[in-house]
Amino acid sequence: MKTATARAHPNIAFIKYWGNQDDVLRLPANSSLSMNLDGLYTQTTVIPDETLFSDVLVLNGEIASGKSLERVVTHLNMLRQRCEIVTHVRVESANNFPTGTGIASSASAFAALTVATAAVFEISMTERELTTLARRGSGSASRSVPTGFVEWHAADTHADSFAESIAAPEYWNLVDVVAIVSDQHKATGSQEGHTTAATSDLQIARVNGAADRLMRCKQAFLARDFATFAEVVELDSNLMHAVMMTSRPPLFYWLPTTLDIMQRVRAWRSQGLNVCYTLDAGPNVHCLCTADAAPEIQRQLQQVAGVMDIKIATPGGAAVVIV
Amino acid sequence: MKTATARAHPNIAFIKYWGNQDDVLRLPANSSLSMNLDGLYTQTTVIPDETLFSDVLVLNGEIASGKSLERVVTHLNMLRQRCEIVTHVRVESANNFPTGTGIASSASAFAALTVATAAVFEISMTERELTTLARRGSGSASRSVPTGFVEWHAADTHADSFAESIAAPEYWNLVDVVAIVSDQHKATGSQEGHTTAATSDLQIARVNGAADRLMRCKQAFLARDFATFAEVVELDSNLMHAVMMTSRPPLFYWLPTTLDIMQRVRAWRSQGLNVCYTLDAGPNVHCLCTADAAPEIQRQLQQVAGVMDIKIATPGGAAVVIV
Repeated sequence: MKTATARAHPNIAFIKYWGNQDDVLRLPANSSLSMNLDGLYTQTTVIPDETLFSDVLVLNGEIASGKSLERVVTHLNMLRQRCEIVTHVRVESANNFPTGTGIASSASAFAALTVATAAVFEISMTERELTTLARRGSGSASRSVPTGFVEWHAADTHADSFAESIAAPEYWNLVDVVAIVSDQHKATGSQEGHTTAATSDLQIARVNGAADRLMRCKQAFLARDFATFAEVVELDSNLMHAVMMTSRPPLFYWLPTTLDIMQRVRAWRSQGLNVCYTLDAGPNVHCLCTADAAPEIQRQLQQVAGVMDIKIATPGGAAVVIV
Repeated sequence: MKTATARAHPNIAFIKYWGNQDDVLRLPANSSLSMNLDGLYTQTTVIPDETLFSDVLVLNGEIASGKSLERVVTHLNMLRQRCEIVTHVRVESANNFPTGTGIASSASAFAALTVATAAVFEISMTERELTTLARRGSGSASRSVPTGFVEWHAADTHADSFAESIAAPEYWNLVDVVAIVSDQHKATGSQEGHTTAATSDLQIARVNGAADRLMRCKQAFLARDFATFAEVVELDSNLMHAVMMTSRPPLFYWLPTTLDIMQRVRAWRSQGLNVCYTLDAGPNVHCLCTADAAPEIQRQLQQVAGVMDIKIATPGGAAVVIV
């Protein structure tokens, strides 16, 4: 058998995914909306090997074991079942960005793994089906399969909870200026976090309003109406973190610098810059802005104490097989 | 006519008041529970003067006008109506602590004003009625009238939404070690904030769970069970701030130092210290602890960058007429 290498970008959600209606199938509690991040990627090579008794995972150059391996093997088993293939594989995967710090590495990782595995097994699938399979590995991975700006639909069945592009990367020249405030691996991964969402008294209210927020966000996005877009994106991020902070036990992903930057972003916007913040399950602040505002945002962030690094990403394309 | 001077303590809520079911009568959305803060007080003298055409307010030594005066005049009109008296008054009021920074100055102010005015007009009233009248000036003022630890009942009518002591100050030797992280007057006062509570998608869920939290908090308090008390107090504070941050427009009262201290408090508790945090509508962190832990909490807080001052308060008594 041949080998296959795929690349997928992480994505940043404008409307967040937090909590499942089905944890095994990873059917999300609400639909979400995101942008792929160009320049950042996971590159994954899948090498079938008839001589292997079990799968081997090499993560960023090191042989993986424990939970990381287990999660990948579970995903490979699901893919093998779909493809009706039994061969074990060696998976070599690497990110060009730090993992576990609020840039969703599991999204790009499971998108790349799914696309590479389908390619190496030579099974023809629609993009829609690929997004549902990627979803099984990590919910937000479904959003890293299609190109540009992507909507992932909540649904009651595996086949209906798919993701699709709502616009190409060129549609709106948004930039994600990511203020890295920690490169420590976070104490609670987002996978565990999703299962705690239901312990917050606020989760149901967040979920009940999500479809309306997604509609408002999508309309503002399609109209390139930054002011409306900014308001709903920040609200949705605040709602997710409100649920996190009121879960039992509570999850606090914010660091003092995180809060500092959030407040500065609001001040910059009130001074006329097209910028808003959003945070995933981590302390880094994604400052979403229009391209014309990006240099000034970067310059300002460089002056904030506690900002260790700044990553800049424009809208990224689909997950693709490169070899 | 004689004059009267009263003193009332501010209070810190264990279970928070945020949002009204009736903004004019200040009937709260949920019942709340608090502790009066000894050592901190508002002292208010009411001097009837038949020669005045309108009320005069002297706040911390300066003649007040605008909204402060208007709010006091509205309250005095309500009290005069109850007492069937028309005389205008000169009110001299001063706090021995900074105003508008998360220590509830309006609570002690309207408790002292209500008690002093009732005294000077020589109207005999039950404590229960005094708490309802104080409530009309500032909701949490109702909790500063009775002694020690106080429950304020949500209800549908003016007469039924009263406050009463659930325990004397001596019942449990709790200490409030207040980390002052800002002496700036906050941008949004809590009075305006209450009216925005309903704009958060999360307020209804917060209110729906409040009676259960109050019961758990009261039981833990009466059993002097610090671990359970700490958990529900922090949860309730987080829930209120979750509502604030998701209101439209959002209210962010936390500063970076606020978040830093909240995280340290949780760490100190996990290390065995009896301490938990709670925040009112401001950035200062109230570190509630048992008396034995207070010196260590104070020592630790002194080493935190951004802590400008530390106030220490033990459980305080009722609002009283002192002259």
